[in-house]
Amino acid sequence: MTQRPLTVGLLGCGIVGSGVVRLLIDHADEIAARVGAPVRVGPVAVRTLSRERDVAVEHLTDDPADVVENPDVDVVVEVMGGIEPARTLISTALSRGVSVVTANKELVATLGTELFALADEKGARLEYEAAVAGGIPIIKPLRESLAGDRVERVLGILNGTTNYILTRMSEKGMAFGDALGEAQQLGYAERDPTADVEGYDAAAKAAILASIAFDAEVVAGDVAREGITRVTAVDIAHAQRMGYAIKLLAIAEEVAGQIGVRVHPALIPQAHPLASVRESFNAVFVEGRAAGDLMFYGRGAGSMPTASAVVGDIVTATRALRAGERPSNGRSATRKPIQSFDDVVVQYYVLLDVADQPGVLAAVARTFGDHNVSIKSVWQEGVGDHAQLLLITHSAREGAVQATLSDLRGLPSVRDVASVMRVEGGEP
Amino acid sequence: MTQRPLTVGLLGCGIVGSGVVRLLIDHADEIAARVGAPVRVGPVAVRTLSRERDVAVEHLTDDPADVVENPDVDVVVEVMGGIEPARTLISTALSRGVSVVTANKELVATLGTELFALADEKGARLEYEAAVAGGIPIIKPLRESLAGDRVERVLGILNGTTNYILTRMSEKGMAFGDALGEAQQLGYAERDPTADVEGYDAAAKAAILASIAFDAEVVAGDVAREGITRVTAVDIAHAQRMGYAIKLLAIAEEVAGQIGVRVHPALIPQAHPLASVRESFNAVFVEGRAAGDLMFYGRGAGSMPTASAVVGDIVTATRALRAGERPSNGRSATRKPIQSFDDVVVQYYVLLDVADQPGVLAAVARTFGDHNVSIKSVWQEGVGDHAQLLLITHSAREGAVQATLSDLRGLPSVRDVASVMRVEGGEP
Repeated sequence: MTQRPLTVGLLGCGIVGSGVVRLLIDHADEIAARVGAPVRVGPVAVRTLSRERDVAVEHLTDDPADVVENPDVDVVVEVMGGIEPARTLISTALSRGVSVVTANKELVATLGTELFALADEKGARLEYEAAVAGGIPIIKPLRESLAGDRVERVLGILNGTTNYILTRMSEKGMAFGDALGEAQQLGYAERDPTADVEGYDAAAKAAILASIAFDAEVVAGDVAREGITRVTAVDIAHAQRMGYAIKLLAIAEEVAGQIGVRVHPALIPQAHPLASVRESFNAVFVEGRAAGDLMFYGRGAGSMPTASAVVGDIVTATRALRAGERPSNGRSATRKPIQSFDDVVVQYYVLLDVADQPGVLAAVARTFGDHNVSIKSVWQEGVGDHAQLLLITHSAREGAVQATLSDLRGLPSVRDVASVMRVEGGEP
Repeated sequence: MTQRPLTVGLLGCGIVGSGVVRLLIDHADEIAARVGAPVRVGPVAVRTLSRERDVAVEHLTDDPADVVENPDVDVVVEVMGGIEPARTLISTALSRGVSVVTANKELVATLGTELFALADEKGARLEYEAAVAGGIPIIKPLRESLAGDRVERVLGILNGTTNYILTRMSEKGMAFGDALGEAQQLGYAERDPTADVEGYDAAAKAAILASIAFDAEVVAGDVAREGITRVTAVDIAHAQRMGYAIKLLAIAEEVAGQIGVRVHPALIPQAHPLASVRESFNAVFVEGRAAGDLMFYGRGAGSMPTASAVVGDIVTATRALRAGERPSNGRSATRKPIQSFDDVVVQYYVLLDVADQPGVLAAVARTFGDHNVSIKSVWQEGVGDHAQLLLITHSAREGAVQATLSDLRGLPSVRDVASVMRVEGGEP
């Protein structure tokens, strides 16, 4: 191999960054064969030079300009996270025509359009496979393999922490708080778990997937979002008896020219492929018009899985460099109308605490009927102070269901609306 | 869009070919946007001009030279199947520097090396996503997304017909023959089902996956192969009670510099993601060194899913044409030693019809011990003439197990070795 080596500069050397360095060193021979030239680790910019690291880096610097303005760097890898200074540093590299690989979902989901436009203008690539679902190849398959097809709907389990918590609640009957505590102890959840349990992390990833699937600009703020903090062990037990599992789902679809994107806990049939995604695994279920149902499953986080995706992108970017390509990044900056959450049409699971007295069911049923929400099945549970009504509706508009719930809360025989969740993925 | 339209010529217009024509017409706008130029259907070569077709083709011909030697054709799509004349026609197109998209697993799995060498020499692309697992994107993810990783093992359910048969046997307790008959009635199985039920179809696909996963030439003849015709409803019932499902698995791994590739029915734990792949679906489970466990799931056959994969490849090939790329197809012609099937080390399930008399178990256990095959668990079933011994071994060499079985057949107390199957995917 007589080709000039290609140099990768890193911004950040935390758990993902050190995984990237390790892979570039350990798999150097295969990578060189696949790229057609050796790929070496160049300057690595970190915040604190003195911190101990478990990988050996020759050129450590605390000045990111040594990476993004360095004429010896062929590809910049951004694994620092957050909006700033990542945005400025990536923009500097792209402006110089240098391709960038990033794992930064937050940045791509909020400022992607600006960055892709800059990359296209300068003939650089901006690759981001690691930004969604960690080690699972999903960005390229959606963008390239399905390029001749039309994606109708994407359903994803995009957050490993919440999937771990829901798995423990389902399989061990644990309460949300206990399962969260266990996830924190195991390092699956942060001390402040808000980004995970409130669905912000999944929403950013959902925005990125929707952008690719529907060729339009979708940003994190477009995503309707509800977390899993109100899911109870009782909900999960009810769901299981009816043949459902409860998962935090990200759902993106194009309905009548509008894009609907939402993240919320949902009941899905136990036979649905997403229902068997356990522990901290992620999966993306794609409904293609021609391809039919597809699922991509794997590790959504972690040092080495995420590093695998980053290094795959480094191979893509360095190969393109060697071939002298200047391809478009293929990201559309077109806005399409975002569907109002009130217009989402879906089935609902509703659990009501009711007074154990005659006429309750009639009053409840009438309230649903008043809003044209049709009930598919109903169970009465418990007696006396613990009486509950459990209902599954037919598909109905979110707005109509919310109006129904508001009226139900006003009924004297309804003590409380204990739970409301959407039902996805068909019949159990 | 002022770009010159690109023209696709087809060899064959059967169920996949007509799906391709339909997608190129129905999704013309999206495809034009993704390629950067309109992509139109040009000449389509068929065997019988007079046959009725459910898609409208302007330029139908019975002379394939109108496709492969036509200067107006930019990309040739081969969806006729079989070795000849497909091989000669593809070679003619590639020799002229014209890129080819094929769905022909048989051809790629036997003569791939010759065709990829020709394509590389002439600067043409040879794409074949549809040749393995129909509509599931697996070739590109393996080749590109995992290019920075090392694949340790690939486990696949690569044949929808046999998966349908095994699903019906498992869920309805049907006998093999009845389930096959049903699959034939539904059009899932051919009148002569040999290629499916004896594992030839899965073996060709396994060879292609192994070639990509391990960067080496692997051909269909390298694959050790055993079909599902001897799997009984009794085996499936035993497996289920022990927490396993039975699947026809394709397994490719690199062990100590040797490549092992085999297709055979196997017990896998019910909690393994492959176990929940039902009906005629396919799935490919990839164990990446860094990425960890990944699974790609979807429709392995059928007109539109296969056409979706072909049109995805057409987009790749036409995009490359517009960008003026001449990239290598990245297929290695290196041979690596193929592991002898006798050297495969795996767990076994063994079902013996035995005489219901004292000392049977001791004699059987001694025979296993003589060949250093260690028994993990054993159950005695039935009484009198229907007594059976069911054993699961620890991992052992195939050669040692075959020698054990040969000795067992010679024991007076063993009436018959009723079943032998490998166990994959860990503990249930």
